[in-house]
This record gives sequence, structure tokens and C-alpha cells, in this order.
Amino acid sequence: MPQNRIEDLHVQFGPFRASAYRVLRFLVLVVGLAAMTAMTVSVVRVEFQSWLTSVLWVCLGVFAGELVLKCWPGSTSKGEPNYLFTTAGAIDMLSVLPIPIALLVGVSADNAWLLASLWLLKLTSLVPGFALLGRVITLEARPLASVLVIVLLLAATALYILERGGQPERFGSLPLSLWWAVTTLTTTGYGDSVPQTFLGRLIAGMVMICGLGVFGMWTGILANGFAAEHRRRDFLRNWDLVTRVPFLRNLDPPAIIALTRMLRPVDLAPRTIVVRRGRPGDCMYFIAAGEVEVRVEPQPIRLGPGSFFGEIALLKDSMRTATVITTAPSTLLLLEVADFRDFMAHHPDLARAIEKEAARRASINTGGAPEERQATAHLVDTLGYDGE
Amino acid sequence: MPQNRIEDLHVQFGPFRASAYRVLRFLVLVVGLAAMTAMTVSVVRVEFQSWLTSVLWVCLGVFAGELVLKCWPGSTSKGEPNYLFTTAGAIDMLSVLPIPIALLVGVSADNAWLLASLWLLKLTSLVPGFALLGRVITLEARPLASVLVIVLLLAATALYILERGGQPERFGSLPLSLWWAVTTLTTTGYGDSVPQTFLGRLIAGMVMICGLGVFGMWTGILANGFAAEHRRRDFLRNWDLVTRVPFLRNLDPPAIIALTRMLRPVDLAPRTIVVRRGRPGDCMYFIAAGEVEVRVEPQPIRLGPGSFFGEIALLKDSMRTATVITTAPSTLLLLEVADFRDFMAHHPDLARAIEKEAARRASINTGGAPEERQATAHLVDTLGYDGE
Amino acid sequence: MPQNRIEDLHVQFGPFRASAYRVLRFLVLVVGLAAMTAMTVSVVRVEFQSWLTSVLWVCLGVFAGELVLKCWPGSTSKGEPNYLFTTAGAIDMLSVLPIPIALLVGVSADNAWLLASLWLLKLTSLVPGFALLGRVITLEARPLASVLVIVLLLAATALYILERGGQPERFGSLPLSLWWAVTTLTTTGYGDSVPQTFLGRLIAGMVMICGLGVFGMWTGILANGFAAEHRRRDFLRNWDLVTRVPFLRNLDPPAIIALTRMLRPVDLAPRTIVVRRGRPGDCMYFIAAGEVEVRVEPQPIRLGPGSFFGEIALLKDSMRTATVITTAPSTLLLLEVADFRDFMAHHPDLARAIEKEAARRASINTGGAPEERQATAHLVDTLGYDGE
Amino acid sequence: MPQNRIEDLHVQFGPFRASAYRVLRFLVLVVGLAAMTAMTVSVVRVEFQSWLTSVLWVCLGVFAGELVLKCWPGSTSKGEPNYLFTTAGAIDMLSVLPIPIALLVGVSADNAWLLASLWLLKLTSLVPGFALLGRVITLEARPLASVLVIVLLLAATALYILERGGQPERFGSLPLSLWWAVTTLTTTGYGDSVPQTFLGRLIAGMVMICGLGVFGMWTGILANGFAAEHRRRDFLRNWDLVTRVPFLRNLDPPAIIALTRMLRPVDLAPRTIVVRRGRPGDCMYFIAAGEVEVRVEPQPIRLGPGSFFGEIALLKDSMRTATVITTAPSTLLLLEVADFRDFMAHHPDLARAIEKEAARRASINTGGAPEERQATAHLVDTLGYDGE
Repeated sequence: MPQNRIEDLHVQFGPFRASAYRVLRFLVLVVGLAAMTAMTVSVVRVEFQSWLTSVLWVCLGVFAGELVLKCWPGSTSKGEPNYLFTTAGAIDMLSVLPIPIALLVGVSADNAWLLASLWLLKLTSLVPGFALLGRVITLEARPLASVLVIVLLLAATALYILERGGQPERFGSLPLSLWWAVTTLTTTGYGDSVPQTFLGRLIAGMVMICGLGVFGMWTGILANGFAAEHRRRDFLRNWDLVTRVPFLRNLDPPAIIALTRMLRPVDLAPRTIVVRRGRPGDCMYFIAAGEVEVRVEPQPIRLGPGSFFGEIALLKDSMRTATVITTAPSTLLLLEVADFRDFMAHHPDLARAIEKEAARRASINTGGAPEERQATAHLVDTLGYDGE
Repeated sequence: MPQNRIEDLHVQFGPFRASAYRVLRFLVLVVGLAAMTAMTVSVVRVEFQSWLTSVLWVCLGVFAGELVLKCWPGSTSKGEPNYLFTTAGAIDMLSVLPIPIALLVGVSADNAWLLASLWLLKLTSLVPGFALLGRVITLEARPLASVLVIVLLLAATALYILERGGQPERFGSLPLSLWWAVTTLTTTGYGDSVPQTFLGRLIAGMVMICGLGVFGMWTGILANGFAAEHRRRDFLRNWDLVTRVPFLRNLDPPAIIALTRMLRPVDLAPRTIVVRRGRPGDCMYFIAAGEVEVRVEPQPIRLGPGSFFGEIALLKDSMRTATVITTAPSTLLLLEVADFRDFMAHHPDLARAIEKEAARRASINTGGAPEERQATAHLVDTLGYDGE
Repeated sequence: MPQNRIEDLHVQFGPFRASAYRVLRFLVLVVGLAAMTAMTVSVVRVEFQSWLTSVLWVCLGVFAGELVLKCWPGSTSKGEPNYLFTTAGAIDMLSVLPIPIALLVGVSADNAWLLASLWLLKLTSLVPGFALLGRVITLEARPLASVLVIVLLLAATALYILERGGQPERFGSLPLSLWWAVTTLTTTGYGDSVPQTFLGRLIAGMVMICGLGVFGMWTGILANGFAAEHRRRDFLRNWDLVTRVPFLRNLDPPAIIALTRMLRPVDLAPRTIVVRRGRPGDCMYFIAAGEVEVRVEPQPIRLGPGSFFGEIALLKDSMRTATVITTAPSTLLLLEVADFRDFMAHHPDLARAIEKEAARRASINTGGAPEERQATAHLVDTLGYDGE
Repeated sequence: MPQNRIEDLHVQFGPFRASAYRVLRFLVLVVGLAAMTAMTVSVVRVEFQSWLTSVLWVCLGVFAGELVLKCWPGSTSKGEPNYLFTTAGAIDMLSVLPIPIALLVGVSADNAWLLASLWLLKLTSLVPGFALLGRVITLEARPLASVLVIVLLLAATALYILERGGQPERFGSLPLSLWWAVTTLTTTGYGDSVPQTFLGRLIAGMVMICGLGVFGMWTGILANGFAAEHRRRDFLRNWDLVTRVPFLRNLDPPAIIALTRMLRPVDLAPRTIVVRRGRPGDCMYFIAAGEVEVRVEPQPIRLGPGSFFGEIALLKDSMRTATVITTAPSTLLLLEVADFRDFMAHHPDLARAIEKEAARRASINTGGAPEERQATAHLVDTLGYDGE
């Protein structure tokens, strides 16, 4: 699966180099496709053909280089299949090979470069949703396709019988009539073939209304399928993150499950302001990875993975008491106030633990000798700290 | 955020002056946009140009005045950013500045006033849903956009190859072909460019059916995202209201959470009939703010915030026993009978408390000396009263 | 509310006379509207004018008669508002009065009868869904309308600027441009005005894609709103029915709530076969009203309200052991096997009670003297009987 | 019901012969419909008429043969109604009889063969979704149809009044105006009749926006209905499978219900790789039917119905430790890792049982004499085995 490969990259180069690589690859793709599109406009081609061709060759070169690097012996870990036989590998080969082959066998340059539209398939590897979409459609394709085919062919036959006399050039054969049926059922309605008889229009009206129904059915199925798949995907991602926070790992299992369903991960660049002093608090944060700085006087405190902050504003329904800034690329788990209250209500033990910690912190924040605060900073590094 | 600003107003002027201000602002907006639209119709412009221009200047003046008032030193509370640097401030400046600037640099009046369409952006600040919409779209934009782009460009390339021979003026370049693809995939179907070859029509049919699918996917994602965001927003709003009702505040936390999910707030103007004697009872009410009058003999009883009424009809499955009218602008929390029964079943303690109170009231309603009733009215002011 | 009135009728005349009345009223409506439609076709009018006019007068007479009967002093119970001031009354008056008034003031007959299209409003009283639709739309109308207006007016202004030069007759004023915008945003796409410039088409493409998004948002909101309202309505209806079945009334409250959410009421005419011997059993039934006959040898057994049947096939995963037929108009509560298993798992007490009863019955069905069976028939009349 | 019949076949011939029969029947259908379509294209008919007619006769013969076989005395089990009187039987007769009858009564061959489009109805028997669709639509048809009719007829009347003067050939009668209304409300927008007056366009715009709303309502209702029906259908199917796994059958009832909602059945052909050594584990499997081979050294182990495998990767969050391949047509129940963790958290007893078994297995896998492993293979055949 393509995702695995990108995750490998993530491990090899760190999240930020991987992200830069993804952005670059995406830019090359956009530039290449734009050049291909411009090539087909005759006015533009006449003037800039050599420039556009160079751009296209460069893009092709980049993709070819990427493919070679990924297939290089040693880049695949033992036990995994060769990259060329994965979906991503097949797509990469489809992006690179057809164009030179077409040019070699004598296809004109104009037509050969149209094969650059295959580069679009690379987008599929950037999108996590395609696997979902595929699975949902596979599950439900049979009933949807049947309804479509039945309505289309019955309507086309009826219109063929009714309209072929009056409009032989538009309804004179079943394929022509099917063309009308598909433009009508999907409510596209080009208007190039329109029934003229009373009965034909009656059937056309019913086909259009069926179109609404088919739409509705399709949407209903996709909506439900997507909802289920999303919940599953989010759960897995959150679970991985939750188990990195010691404070949460020690909850009893049903509480972990409930919390996993509630948390929402946020990836933040360094020096991003997470909460701002004086603003209303609408969520609290657990640190899954990275580091944040709590701007308290006289000296800021740094919190690492496993800490939490932001709970005081939720417990007291008050404003944020300190500004918190990331100091490194961080992944935070965000718990909204609605879910926070729900969770606290059903898990009074955790509620008490968080409240006790919050009270301890409040006493430090308001007074306390600097040495003492340093000591606590050490302690909260494993237990969490309120950054307000 | 714009909402905060309007809430400030709410605090400064009270809910009803704030509401009048919103209606006025909305009217100015509508009148201004109508004048701008009328200006573009040559028949109208010839006759009423001076009138329309005056209207537009007045609207612009109102918006300019609003902006100045809001930026006035002292109108922003300490610690908040300057109004001009908030989203609402930027929108207000976009509404006011471009038109005079355009007129100054010599743009003709006709064209300069078209910039009044930027006033529309003010509508975004009146609508709480935009933040939701934005968040939902941001989360899911990548897969949706990718599917769109892939289908569009592949279909356009295929049709460009198939149809450019027969219809060079409609499919003679990829941009032309993309225009066809976008009108077809979205099922708009202008009918200005229609494929004529058999293969072209086959692909067109598939694009239309993909269009249904993309619709469905889009809808599914938006529907699920909206549902989640709505639940979150309603929970927060209801929580604020529930905690103002003493009777509810003392429930155990999971019961408060469950009730918060069930209640639906209703804002009512003074002298609105809430329940009418003799009608079937389908909900009960908690008073979060304001005051109602229960029309019982010999003398009506007034109930303030924290009281409840309407539960007798639900407990006994009977008709309303008294008419209840608001005497001040009020916010009531409505608990539908379906939810009432569900809640009573799962929280027998509350059920008993409400039943006891209802029994006590019934005995007062049917008999009891006036003095005694006065005393109870005092009591029910904190405990709730059945207004039927 | 119109529903109340129809329910009154239900009480006055019994469900079947009320149903006949509804069908008749619906037929008169259909015939009247068909006649009105036919009147506008000149070919038909020339030949059948007098016939059609007579039909229309008859329909008008029927509606007038209905209105008079409903307003008749004494037909309204005390305490209710006069019929004429209810929504249904207003609709009935709108159906009856405008046509004669129009004829009196001298409107030509052709035009006056077009007012018969107001009869359509009567359909609203036959449909329970309108109140739902109204409530859902009211709640969410503001954000939806704002998005529509903003996209429409911004797109129209942009196209007005871009296209007015090339196509003055189609984009020469903002209202013309708005017409294009609305046909495009709703993906109707008549094709009467189509942008020709590159930028115009780019914006048009974005408007179409926005159209998909607006669709999606709209659908998501309506879908969620409808789901919530439906659940509420079904709960209330089922609750009424469940409380008529003694066996269910004695469950503990959370079990009643759970069951109420699961049951699905079915209205059946007399002599309908409910379950057929030898077919696989996929649900059991509780009798809320009416009577059924269990065809067991040597002599059928009759079961009245409060009985249940069909549980043996579910408990043993076997075929139906007897045919059951209604002997009177009946309302049965259907519990599907999926829900049956879920419910039994969470309520072991009820499971045991039903199993004991089923075992007792099985012993009777297989053997047992006729007298004994008669005795049990008496007993099961209150306790339920398995009709398989 | 058609499904029953196909299930009978399943029992008679085994799943794979039944599946081959279904594929064959589907192919005959596709070929027949393609031939019918080709017949209507005059260019094709001139050249290949005799070939196409032969193909059509062969298809008809196949369907006739199928019908005869199914009606053959003895093919129906006692107590069931005759095949000809079931829905599937009626469809089969509609496929076979009308064509020869039409030819006999003298209809031309071209027209008679158009009746082959009735063969499409056979598709309904292959699709389980139609019953669902029907039930959902029946439940909600009344409100949907009413909204459609009201909007259509009111809009048509308004446009008839407004536009009949200017465009008598397009809006000159109510039926013509209705044709416009239906193409507009469904957002089909042929563009053959377009309002020209200002008021007409205003109403048209509102009709289009209503179209979005009707779409949304329709979709919402269908989506909710489908979701409920799907859950019910999946539950029943899974329940049948779960009760075949001894390990699961002994759980307490609420756990069985919860698990039944989570499992997803997968049908696999023989020699399919289920899990691959070294891949990340994202689900575990229970064997409902068939047999799998766990490729462990020194000798693979076979697991039959009632066993489970794949849990070690989930418990340890590790890679698969062995490859598992089916050796016979198998039905596996798949439990995704998200659901696995949820289930383990709420059913600690089962969690302990699975963990103990996993620990025992791990010790065998790493060491242990071959004889001992043979013995365990016997044991795990009833208890389950981890195939990683």
C-alpha cells in the first residue's frame, strides 16, 4: 500500500523532510499538468512549444528519478515485496514509461505528451480517502448499478418506441435513446435530445424523479459507509497517540476506548501559539509528541510528551491563564469542552485526579518560591501541566 | 471572532437592543445591494441614477459609521486584539474603503459601486454556521478535491482525443474540453458542448454517473461533519443554560450530560403563550431566563428562572391544566415527551422528585386557601411549578 | 393543527370510515386538478369545455360542503378554537372562496379556474411530514440562505463584469447575470446563458462545484434534522401502543423505553395473513388493537389485544408452526428478530418469561386434550399466544 | 421471495455451482440485451440481422429452459407455493412468453424483440437491495410525492399565467408548463423551455432552490432508511455465522449481540492468502465455515470451523508471525482492530481467555517438540489458533 511507503519515508527522514518532499512532488505534478494543458492550446503552443516541452521533460525526469531511488536495492526492507509490484510502484511506472515508449514508436509529440495525464494517478497515493471510497463502492456497487441499468434501459426502450417516428436522428436507435436516458437520469440535461410526445415527456418526467431517488440512494449508502470507515480510521490513529500519554495509558480500558473516540489529534509546527492568555478556554490538550512552553512568570516551563495542559479553564469555566507555544514540531490531542464534561461525568476518578493536579498547579502559579517551581516543573513533565 | 463582538454588544445593550441593531444592519445591507443591482439595469439607471447613488452613499455612510464606532478607543476591552485586525474588522474595512478609493483613482461610478457586492461578506458575521462549514471542508477538502481533479482531467483528455477531430471549436484544446468536463461532472449540462462520437458519449455517461457518486461522497462527508459539529455546538449552549437551573444543577453529572443532550432552548418574546389550557401536553419547560405567568384561579402565579412547568400533562398523559404566558423576554429549555420518558426511566430519583412536586401542586390547584397558595408560589419559585 | 381534526374524525367514525373519507377527498382533488389542467389545453377545451366546467363545479361544491360541515356549530369541542381560524380551516377557505369571488368580479372563467390550483394546499393536511420539514428548515434556514445569497451575488457580479462586453443581451445587467448564477449554482444549466471568456468559465466552474457543496450541506442538514424528528415521532406513536399491551406495561421503565424504540406498528385489514405456516420466522408480534385467529388443529384460537404470537420461531430458529390471520382491523407491533435477540440479551427476565410461555404452548400444540386447550386459550388471551 | 429460491439452489448444488449458475445467467442476460440494442441500429441490423436474431433466440431458449426446470413437479418442496405464483416466477414468465406471443399475433420482429428489455427484470432477483429500497420508499412515499406535486403544479400554474403571452408554444397550456416545471425542479434543465419574464425567472429560481431542498429531503430519508435496514440485514447474517463458532457461542448474550454488530463476514475462494507474514496486523478472524492452513515451521497446521487466528498481532501490536491460506471455500468473520480493542475493554473475561490462548500458542511457536505441536493442533481445532 502507498501509505506504508510514505510512512517509511517519515521514519527515514523525519516528518518535516517527508512533508517537504510531498509538497515538492505535488508542485512538480501541478506544473507538469499545467504545461500539458497549455500544449493543447494552439495559440500558446505556437509561441512557447520549446519551453513547455522542456518543462514536461523535467517533470518526467523528476518522476523517473523518484522511481529509480525507490527501487534501488536496499531501499526495501527484507520481507516486503519489491516496490515495482506494489500499487504505488505500478502507478509510478505508468507515469514514467508510456511517454518515451510512445515517442520511440513514432507517436507525434503532441499526442505522446497527453499521456502525462496519467501523472494524475499519483494523486491517489496522496489521498487516504481512496481506499475508503473503493471499499464502500465495492460493497454496494451491485444494487446501485442494477437500479441504474434497469431504469436506463427501460426508459431508453420506451422513448425509442415513442419518439423514433418524430425524431429519428435523436431517438432512432437504442444507443441514441440510451444517451438521452443517461443525460436525463443523472439530471445533466444537455437538451440535445428532448422528447416531444406527451407520453415520452411523461416517462421523461418519471425518469428525472427516479434520478432524484437514485441520487438519494447513492448518497445515503456512501454517507453511511463513509461515516463507518472514518470512525474506524480515526479510532486507530487516536489509539496510537493515546497510548503514548502515560497519564491516559493507566485508565481502565473502557475509559481509554471512550477517550480515544473523543480526542482529535492536531499537528503543529514549532513556535505555534496553542492557547493565548485571556481567551476563553474551549478545550484541553494532551501532548503525544513534541514539546510546548508555558509562558508563566518568572520563567517559562517546558512540557514534553505525556503532559497535559489547558484543563484549568475548563474546570473553572474561566479564561486561559497563560499563553502556550510549541517549541518543536508537536502532535497534541485536543479534548473539546463538550467531550471533557461528558468524560468527567462518567469517569469521576479521572475527574478527581485532574482536579487535584489543577489545584496543586494553581497554588504554584499564584505563589511559591522559584526553586519549588523548578522542582514541580520536573514533576509535571510526567504528570502534565496546565498551560493557562 | 465576529460572534464575540456581537456577544459584547449583547452585554452592553441587552439582548433586544442588540437584536434591533442586527435587523437594522441587515436592512441597510439589503437596500444597498438592491440599489447596486438596480444600477446595472440600464432602463432603471437612466431614470433613477441620482436616487440610487444617494441610497448607496447612505448605506456606505452607515457602514463607515459602524466601523468608526467599533474602533473607537475604549470600545475594545483590554487584552483583546484591536478590532481592525479581527476577521470582522477586516470585512468591515473591505466594505467601506474600496469604493471611495476606486472613485478617487478615477474608476467610473458604475464600476466602483459594483464593489458594494463586498458588503455581502458582512452576512458571514451574522451566520454561526460558517465556522462549522469551514472546519468540515478543511478536514475533508483533500480527498474531495483530488477525486474531482482526477475525474475532470482524465475525462477532458479522453474527450479531447476523441472529439477534437469532429468539433474543433468545442473540444479543440484541453481547457475547452475541461469546460465540458466540469459542466458534465457537476450535472449542470449547459448543452453548449456535447460529445458526438460513440466512445465520447460512453465516457460522458460514465462521467455523469461519477458525478452522482462525487455528489454522494461530498454529501456524506458534509452531512456527517455537520452532525458532529452541531451536536458539539448545541451541547455547549445547552450546558450554559442547564447550569442556570438550580433544580437541574444538583443532578449527578451523567444525568446532567444526558439532559443537556436532550433539552432544546427556545427564546420567546414577552406575552407569548407557551402552553394553552386544554391542549395535549407534548413537552415540559425549565426556565433558564425571564419570567412566565401561570394563569390559575383565583390569581395567576409568576415563575422565575430555575422553575419548571408543564410536567403534569406528561406524567398523567392528560391535557394542559392551565395557560402559561411569558411576561418578559425569556429563554425556556424544552424537554419533549419522548425524551422526558426516556430520562425518567433512567433516572428514577429525579422522576420521584418531579412526581412528588407535581402531586403537591395538584393538591394546591384543586383546593387550598389563597394564603397557602401565595406561600407555595414563593417556594415553587426556586423549585419549579406546573403551568398546566 | 390539521392532524388533530383528522384524529377527531377517527374517533367519531372509526378508522375505516375515516380512511374512506380521506380516499374520497383525495380522488375529488385529483379529478378537479386534472380537469383544471385539461381546461388549459386549447384542443381539449374546445370540445369538452362544458363537461370540464361541470366537473370543476362539482369538486368546488364538495369542498364547500366539507367546509360548511366542519364549521357547523357543535362540531368543534368546547375550548378549541373555531375551525376557520386553524391552518386547515384557512386552507379550506382558500380552496372554496377565491374562485366564485374571481368570477363575480368579472375574471374570465379560464383564469378564474386556475385558482383551483390552490386546492393543492389541501394535500398538506394529509401529510404528517410537513410540520417536520417546516421545523427543520426554520432551524437551519439562515446559514443555508446566506451561503446561497453570497455565492449567487458574488458570482453574478463577477460574470457581469467579465461577460457584459461580449454578451450584453445575456450578462448586460446584474439581474440577467443573477439568472445565470441561479441556473448554474443549482446545476440546472438551461444553457440559455453560458460564459464565453476564460475567466468567466473558471468562475462558472467554481460556482458549479460550490453547487455540489451547497447541495451536500443542505442534504446533510435535512437528513440529520429528519432523522431526529422521525425518531421522536415514532417514539410517541409506539409509546401509546406499547402501553396498551399489559405484558409490556409491566416491564421496568428502561426496558419499555428500549422496546418502544424497537417496535414497528403495522395496521392490517381484516382477513390478512400475518404469518404463514412453514415460512421462516423473522419477527414476533404484539397485538395492540384488533383480533387474530391462530389456525391450530383441531380448532382455531382467537387472540385479542395484549396477546403476543410468533416468538417460537425466533426462540428455536425454526419455521412458523401455524398460520395466523386477522379477523378484525388490527394494529400489531412487530419486533424484528435482530431486535428480539438484542432485547432478550439485555433483559433476561423477560426472556425467561417468554421462554416459559413458549414451552407451555409447545406442549399444548403437540398434544393435550381439547378441553385443556380451550382453557389455555382463555389464559393466553391475556398473556399472549404463539401463532406459529 | 426470489432470495429463498436462490438459497434453495445453494443447498441443492453447493455454493460454487450456484455461483457459476448465477454468473452464466448474468452473461446470457448481458449478451441478450446487447444483441437487442444492436438490432435497433440500422447499420448493424443490415449486416448482422440473422446472427443477432439467432443470439436472441438462444437467450430466450435459455430462459425458457430455466423456467421449465424450476416449475418441474418435485422441484418445489411441499408446503411452498407453486413457483409460477412467486415474484421470481412471474418475472421469468414475463421474460419468456411475451416475445413469441407478439411474433404469433403478427408484430414485426424488430418490435417484438424490444420486449427483451423485460429480461432486465431478472436483475431484480439478483439484488438483495430492492426489497430494502421498496420498503423505504413505501414508508416515505406520501410526503415526498406530495411535496413534488405541490411544488410542480403551483410553479407550472404560475409560469403558465406569466409566460403564455410571450411563449405560447412553450407555456401555452398547463401540461406544457408542467413539463418545464419537472425539468426545472429536478435540476435537469434541458433548456428547451426557459422563462423570459422577470417574475417568471424569479419563480423559476425559487423552484430550482426548492429542487435542492427536495433532493435533500429525499436523500435524508433514503439515507436514514437504508442505514436502518442495512444494520438489520447485517445483524441477521452475522448472527447465523456467530452461532457456528463454539468459542463465541458461549459468551453471555449481550457480548454476543455486541460482537455480532462488529463482525464482518468475508467469503474466500480456496488458496487465498488471508494474512501474510511480516505485514502489520489490523484484524483477527474467526472461521465460520471452511478451512485454513497456518504456515508455521516445521509443518503447517490446519484450522477448521470454530477456530480463530490473527489475535497475536492485535494483542502485541506487532507484525503477522505466519502466513495463513484458505484450503477450501471459507467464510471468515473479520474483527477489525478498532472493534477488537473496544470489545476487549468491555469484556475482560473474553480478553483473558484470548490472551491465555495466545500466550500458550506463542510458547509453542517459538519452541516445543513436533509431537507436542501435533497434539495442540488437535486442541486448537476447537479452540482457535493464531495464524501469525
